[in-house]
Amino acid sequence: MSEKIRVGIAGYGNLGKGVEKAVAQTSDMELKGIFTRRDPKSLNPAGNVPVYSMDQAEALKDEFDVVILCGGSATDLPVQTPELVQFFNVVDSFDTHANIPVHFENVDHAATGSGHIGLISIGWDPGLFSLNRILSQSILPNGKTYTFWGKGVSQGHSDAVRRIQGVADARQYTIPVEEALEKVRSGQNPELTTREKHTRECFVVAEEGADLAAIEKEIVEMPNYFSDYDTTVHFITAEEMAKNHSGLPHGGFVIHSGSTGDNNHVIEFALNLDSNPEFTSSVLTAYARAAYRMNKMGMNGAKTIFDVAPAWICEKSPADQRKELL
Amino acid sequence: MSEKIRVGIAGYGNLGKGVEKAVAQTSDMELKGIFTRRDPKSLNPAGNVPVYSMDQAEALKDEFDVVILCGGSATDLPVQTPELVQFFNVVDSFDTHANIPVHFENVDHAATGSGHIGLISIGWDPGLFSLNRILSQSILPNGKTYTFWGKGVSQGHSDAVRRIQGVADARQYTIPVEEALEKVRSGQNPELTTREKHTRECFVVAEEGADLAAIEKEIVEMPNYFSDYDTTVHFITAEEMAKNHSGLPHGGFVIHSGSTGDNNHVIEFALNLDSNPEFTSSVLTAYARAAYRMNKMGMNGAKTIFDVAPAWICEKSPADQRKELL
Repeated sequence: MSEKIRVGIAGYGNLGKGVEKAVAQTSDMELKGIFTRRDPKSLNPAGNVPVYSMDQAEALKDEFDVVILCGGSATDLPVQTPELVQFFNVVDSFDTHANIPVHFENVDHAATGSGHIGLISIGWDPGLFSLNRILSQSILPNGKTYTFWGKGVSQGHSDAVRRIQGVADARQYTIPVEEALEKVRSGQNPELTTREKHTRECFVVAEEGADLAAIEKEIVEMPNYFSDYDTTVHFITAEEMAKNHSGLPHGGFVIHSGSTGDNNHVIEFALNLDSNPEFTSSVLTAYARAAYRMNKMGMNGAKTIFDVAPAWICEKSPADQRKELL
Repeated sequence: MSEKIRVGIAGYGNLGKGVEKAVAQTSDMELKGIFTRRDPKSLNPAGNVPVYSMDQAEALKDEFDVVILCGGSATDLPVQTPELVQFFNVVDSFDTHANIPVHFENVDHAATGSGHIGLISIGWDPGLFSLNRILSQSILPNGKTYTFWGKGVSQGHSDAVRRIQGVADARQYTIPVEEALEKVRSGQNPELTTREKHTRECFVVAEEGADLAAIEKEIVEMPNYFSDYDTTVHFITAEEMAKNHSGLPHGGFVIHSGSTGDNNHVIEFALNLDSNPEFTSSVLTAYARAAYRMNKMGMNGAKTIFDVAPAWICEKSPADQRKELL
């Protein structure tokens, strides 16, 4: 019997807890420890696994086959991924699209030096959505790809509303416009404005005595976040917020429409997720298997979902894959 | 400037003609010749490319970087793929699911011996659908995958109807049942019978004086092909057939529903194709690029879509892929 892949988690928030659950659903991986920047004693992981301080990473470098980085893209991962890839094969979900080339270079430099794999930007966008973009455009180069997000909670937009004076709590949903989806699916390759693609819906708990009209105006006119969209604002109670908006659902669509001569073809990929972080964790976990295997095959350096053959994320043997899944 | 990939086509039917169009949409590939079992002079390819007899393959082995095999799975590919992989990197669309393991072994033996890549079962099912099955099941192992086909023309079923006495021409459409799709998308993981998943619709041109009731009965009761389905039969004129049913549209859905703890997630991939053969040709052409590159990287032997990293099918440079598609 082969040894299990020894997995570590760095960062024990929503993503880290999701990875813990995802690893438990596999039979070839084993959670060997959690790294945290908090006091290790303050964590209560579900399984009976050791919790380490992030500072102990180097000392423990031979104890893990792959470490899944569960920090945020704004400040954690730009530092942690290049640092931890010195000691381990790592996977992260770095999702600031515009900064991916720089992050890639930083991780590649450190990973090449240490002989590890640094698999970055794994999740669903970037991630599975990117995969569908590259497949579609490679197969039907004479075409156009559309990405829609939602219906789902945008944490960045929710935070932006929460920062408004008089707002006690807020949740923002991004919603794709059904007519735009239908137009794209019909193969018309329409030019769509930002406003035509998505609407935004905000649920706001106001502080007592707050000026609701002023809050609504500040939301719908907020540049970058809301001014280019049709936005609806609903004021609700804290109880309604807790009851109806405590989840973090998300999803979306990548639709490519392209032609071959006189014929048109539509390729569509859609996700409908009850929990954005738990699904992202599941993607990270499957690709952690690939990171480990790629390193075993002799590869190193920064990699993305584009560099990973599907066989490498699958627990089944190649022969079983061909027999059962092809 | 780098040299273009020198592509050959073996078999000049619907698929071969589709590959010819697909190669013309790329800027890194060049069609260098077509192999046929017919009299080479009888072919009139769209571009000004040489047509060779299949017997000349060995003599021309240094003239092609990859040859795309466009024969049928029943009798052509089981012979041609192992034979031609002795001389070239090849890609085929072998789609008899049950025989894939044997075909793989035969191609692997020949390809390993010659140092070439034999990339088999490329298309959409097997192919892109397989890719979505392996991704979904690797990411959400606690779940269930459903494959639906259509709406589209099944050539095997159309042929079966054409063989009935009194039938001059026939076209059979496979149609997924909308309620079944909805039930799957809702995350219920239903158990569905064959009859609950698809219906079949036949358009038949009868010979003059034929017994229509007898034809209809023979269709709907035909074992394996129709008896397990709800089948509708329409008798139409030859003119209606030519006008409304001359295309070969197809498509379908791979839907996976799986859970992580208390949360459920649905991954859906859908194709809506005006021309089944032209789309398959486009997939073959993109993966021919990968076959060539994999061989350049030092790989050989039989491979499937599971072994191909997405980056390898894409014309763009890795840096542009990350910048534009990730």
